Amino acid sequence: MLQALELLAVLAAASFGLLLARSKQLDLVGVCCVTFLVAFGGGTLRDVLLDRQPLFWIEHEHYAWIVFGIAIAGSLLPRLPRRLERWLNLPDALGMALFSIVGAGVAIRTETFPVSPFLASLFGVMTGTFGGVLGDIACNDVPRLFQPTMTLYATCSWIGCWVYLLLRGTSLGPDVALWSGTVTIVLLRLAAVRWNLRLPATRA
Amino acid sequence: MLQALELLAVLAAASFGLLLARSKQLDLVGVCCVTFLVAFGGGTLRDVLLDRQPLFWIEHEHYAWIVFGIAIAGSLLPRLPRRLERWLNLPDALGMALFSIVGAGVAIRTETFPVSPFLASLFGVMTGTFGGVLGDIACNDVPRLFQPTMTLYATCSWIGCWVYLLLRGTSLGPDVALWSGTVTIVLLRLAAVRWNLRLPATRA
Amino acid sequence: MLQALELLAVLAAASFGLLLARSKQLDLVGVCCVTFLVAFGGGTLRDVLLDRQPLFWIEHEHYAWIVFGIAIAGSLLPRLPRRLERWLNLPDALGMALFSIVGAGVAIRTETFPVSPFLASLFGVMTGTFGGVLGDIACNDVPRLFQPTMTLYATCSWIGCWVYLLLRGTSLGPDVALWSGTVTIVLLRLAAVRWNLRLPATRA
Repeated sequence: MLQALELLAVLAAASFGLLLARSKQLDLVGVCCVTFLVAFGGGTLRDVLLDRQPLFWIEHEHYAWIVFGIAIAGSLLPRLPRRLERWLNLPDALGMALFSIVGAGVAIRTETFPVSPFLASLFGVMTGTFGGVLGDIACNDVPRLFQPTMTLYATCSWIGCWVYLLLRGTSLGPDVALWSGTVTIVLLRLAAVRWNLRLPATRA
Repeated sequence: MLQALELLAVLAAASFGLLLARSKQLDLVGVCCVTFLVAFGGGTLRDVLLDRQPLFWIEHEHYAWIVFGIAIAGSLLPRLPRRLERWLNLPDALGMALFSIVGAGVAIRTETFPVSPFLASLFGVMTGTFGGVLGDIACNDVPRLFQPTMTLYATCSWIGCWVYLLLRGTSLGPDVALWSGTVTIVLLRLAAVRWNLRLPATRA
Repeated sequence: MLQALELLAVLAAASFGLLLARSKQLDLVGVCCVTFLVAFGGGTLRDVLLDRQPLFWIEHEHYAWIVFGIAIAGSLLPRLPRRLERWLNLPDALGMALFSIVGAGVAIRTETFPVSPFLASLFGVMTGTFGGVLGDIACNDVPRLFQPTMTLYATCSWIGCWVYLLLRGTSLGPDVALWSGTVTIVLLRLAAVRWNLRLPATRA
């Protein structure tokens, strides 16, 4: 079950990378690089900042093959389905949720030095959402995650990470915590898309 | 004294991040991310490149809380004081000076491999100034630090780092070296602001 | 021979950084930072992702001095030679080829965890080409490497890395593998420049 979800998470993230790269009319090289960056950027940043070696996509190499395959196949398609972005809402919510909770769990279980729940929650958000941020920066856009036009995304991730981290310490066990956190994020994210929930812009 | 200065340095850097994020009309998520990036980016880059673990804001977690608090509070304010940027000149000069000297000191004292004074001076400048560079890149601007419109900033940092590194080897002791370097940077930076000192632009 | 080629590679990469920084009319600080980033960015990223310490330009410090010297001298010149970019085609092809093959070799010989030939080939391309990508991102451009206007570059690097990695396992020995890979990249790259070979753009 978790394996299938992880695969879905990587697939959804890679598809968003593909969409971004094609909207910028990059070539095959650009599509591959941006797809890798969006799919693996958040987790790689977490691993580098927490000094975890090897990186998750070096340890689980099949992820790298899958993303590479999506990028190549996705470059060769003459056109992407028009509604791809809308179809991706649910898999993306699932993927972002799973990446966030796994990221927070990896951070809180760091063995070489203590990481507090507060910092672990930030690492969870980073794992779940920073692939897209790095992709936007590489494609010369202000990251959509930072902008008020974006429906709630990092906020859903952060709340779910706290649900996971707080339940983890109770007698309910790690599985209940993991699934509660994941479901919280998915429901919040789908609600944000459905009712177009956003944070207001700040002013200079 | 050093503790108070360090706190001031983090506060000043976070305030600049806040100013930058609000000038781009980001939302709460964007303000938090950019504020973290400007406040912690330079030191994090130094720690990652020198393989120092845990990162300074994981080891001294209260810094992360302070920056988080500034970002949240600063997002909720309806307006920032108009002259905030001018008020920040002195605290920013102090903060940049302290970050630079501490960064150069951390680099020169690396235990796992030798780091020469020349490289340590570059790590000092990186620690003191690259938070703003990363913030500008994330906000889709050419870094102001790289442009001829900027009054002397990295240059002041570099000269002060050399003052620190050269005095450190003498019989005057590390405290005299630290304060001489810091004061040099602050005075040079305030002079650069006062007399609008800049480096010329290059041409293609 | 290898020493001389490595020096040439660093010189060519630094010259491209200089050209980029001057085309953006940066000041001395900007020229130094962008030149360092273009010359050392790819190798540094490889070292950080593979957890190799110290970084190659900390271990071989004379590279840092050379790049620093080029940046300072190149900032002070009133004008760069008009045809510099064309003169750089051959040294850049040589430099990119050598960086790629050395990068793939460093990755495949990682001792702390296994790195497959597929991942090693990606690290080779990263080492050879990502300095320019990071420079473009810092200068607020969509990386030229990702765009269909660019003649084949990463593609040449990738094919040559595979030539090296496949021959390395045979009885021909590492030297034959290294030179075959390098020559493959140089010839492919020069052919791409000569006949203006490109990859097509994708569409949204």
